[in-house]
Amino acid sequence: MSETVNLSLEEAEALSRKALSANGADEENARATTDIMMRAERDRCASHGLFRLEGYCKSLISGKVDGAARPTVTEQGPGAVRVDGNHGFAPLALEAALPAVAEKARSQGIAVVGITNIHHFAALWPEVETLADQNLCAIAVTQASPMVAPSGGKKRLFGTNPMAFAWPRPGNDHFVFDQASAAMARGEVMIHARDGHKVPLGTGIDEDGNPTEDPNEVLKGAQLAFGGYKGANIALMVELLAGGLIGSVFSYEAGRLDNKDGGPATGGEAIIAIDPSRLGGADWAAHCEGLFEELAAIPGTRLPGERRRKARQETPQTGIDLPAALHAKVVELSEA
Amino acid sequence: MSETVNLSLEEAEALSRKALSANGADEENARATTDIMMRAERDRCASHGLFRLEGYCKSLISGKVDGAARPTVTEQGPGAVRVDGNHGFAPLALEAALPAVAEKARSQGIAVVGITNIHHFAALWPEVETLADQNLCAIAVTQASPMVAPSGGKKRLFGTNPMAFAWPRPGNDHFVFDQASAAMARGEVMIHARDGHKVPLGTGIDEDGNPTEDPNEVLKGAQLAFGGYKGANIALMVELLAGGLIGSVFSYEAGRLDNKDGGPATGGEAIIAIDPSRLGGADWAAHCEGLFEELAAIPGTRLPGERRRKARQETPQTGIDLPAALHAKVVELSEA
Repeated sequence: MSETVNLSLEEAEALSRKALSANGADEENARATTDIMMRAERDRCASHGLFRLEGYCKSLISGKVDGAARPTVTEQGPGAVRVDGNHGFAPLALEAALPAVAEKARSQGIAVVGITNIHHFAALWPEVETLADQNLCAIAVTQASPMVAPSGGKKRLFGTNPMAFAWPRPGNDHFVFDQASAAMARGEVMIHARDGHKVPLGTGIDEDGNPTEDPNEVLKGAQLAFGGYKGANIALMVELLAGGLIGSVFSYEAGRLDNKDGGPATGGEAIIAIDPSRLGGADWAAHCEGLFEELAAIPGTRLPGERRRKARQETPQTGIDLPAALHAKVVELSEA
Repeated sequence: MSETVNLSLEEAEALSRKALSANGADEENARATTDIMMRAERDRCASHGLFRLEGYCKSLISGKVDGAARPTVTEQGPGAVRVDGNHGFAPLALEAALPAVAEKARSQGIAVVGITNIHHFAALWPEVETLADQNLCAIAVTQASPMVAPSGGKKRLFGTNPMAFAWPRPGNDHFVFDQASAAMARGEVMIHARDGHKVPLGTGIDEDGNPTEDPNEVLKGAQLAFGGYKGANIALMVELLAGGLIGSVFSYEAGRLDNKDGGPATGGEAIIAIDPSRLGGADWAAHCEGLFEELAAIPGTRLPGERRRKARQETPQTGIDLPAALHAKVVELSEA
């Protein structure tokens, strides 16, 4: 059953906007949220593309998310800004947050934006990549519903808590990673479950705390952090940055507030942007290319995101191949 | 051969200052550098205590490090400051950098300090803990000589590249972690080699790129990052922040510049300090205590640094137990 349906990016985009609008998003939110899904589809990141559309729609239908929300931007100091998403999806809040934090990073050298009351259901690389396009170094973190056990524990507390980082490489593909503090991103566990594949040991534990290779058991039990206690420390750091630092909820609070409609819980995102020209010297970019050249000269190495960027060149011509069941769901949602 | 010599903290401190002074440090550098080693000894972190004294002295003797260096502080923007260590050891530069970045973090909301031309031979938790004492959240990173292979490669490129993080908990022990991007800190690999212990597979590879449990082979070959490619991404992020962002050397450059005298290579350190009261709301600290209570309520969990802080209460009474050979070396250095 590997049947797929080929769509052009434009067709996919139109279906997504129609589906979001049909289920309660206004035009701006439907556009911005579709844009984020399309950035994933364009890069063949299936787990953050139209695979998410049903969850977005469910959260509109249940009333958990305000499909007409507009973000509120408030300066909180020369280097700090708050963007309140006012219970909307994250993309429109990000469209307000990124220019605000970029402007402050350029004028101050470094800046932080705290985005609160959003429902984030996407990857984090789009936001840090956007800042790198402006020659800024960026770090982004967000929490999620509780899914990951802390080090030594057998109960969920942390979200999968991704951290994304981008280093600007003018004239080159930026160095960008976006990785869950969990051993595997939840979207990937869900894809494994959907496709009937096992997950590696260490991905998670079942409801009784036992190691398991069954993605369905992991989804019911708890995921584990990558790299043992060090990854768990990073997961806790992400909680504190995306929750405590910016006055947003922690994952466990988000979980309690959530109506379990299948869409994204409420949450927050912290983004730090830094201007390398302040401390890095006039030749900062050339200096860093030296490091990337050293890396490339070592056989077997590669930078994260290469596959994504290759796909980005191809999909405008090839379109995207959606699993037939997903395509049927997208069409159904668009005809609601 | 587990013979040890017990010293009071005061006796250890006096020996260290005498040794550094006898080998070329002026009074201020001998004091500051000793203070940093004593913070480690006080917490029974053997790998960053007097174990490092010989390396410090060797770098003074070889002339690689200027024992009379004074740091230069230069503002680089409202939120950015540079501290040039002028080829001295890191501790005196840190004593200048921490108040500067703290003041900026309070006035701006977030600030970054780039410390360059230092020789860092210590843990990073002292600097982030000092900022947490001032109710600031802090992230610190530094590179080192090349010791760690990038993901997929069999040749050293990255340093062990520690990242430290502190979250302030007023009235409580701060949440602090300080972890190498390498699977094991190099100091720990050296301690394993000294004590004739094996290291776990995954710690590193030998000179031919083969996995090994022999710490001596790892020290000759290359260490590996923790958690596979995700840890390697963090190692590269640390290179870019502690090298490219602040105009300091990358690990591979530090390695080429180093005279291999056994002491610390030249390097840099980036520290970001953030004021949680800007975005976290008036109740940010209480809000975060809720998370720590949830964590503590899960059986089996513990926070990093608990062992250190317990030791910190004890060593003023018990003193510290130095391996006899190390004690003899310290005495010998102090009588140079």
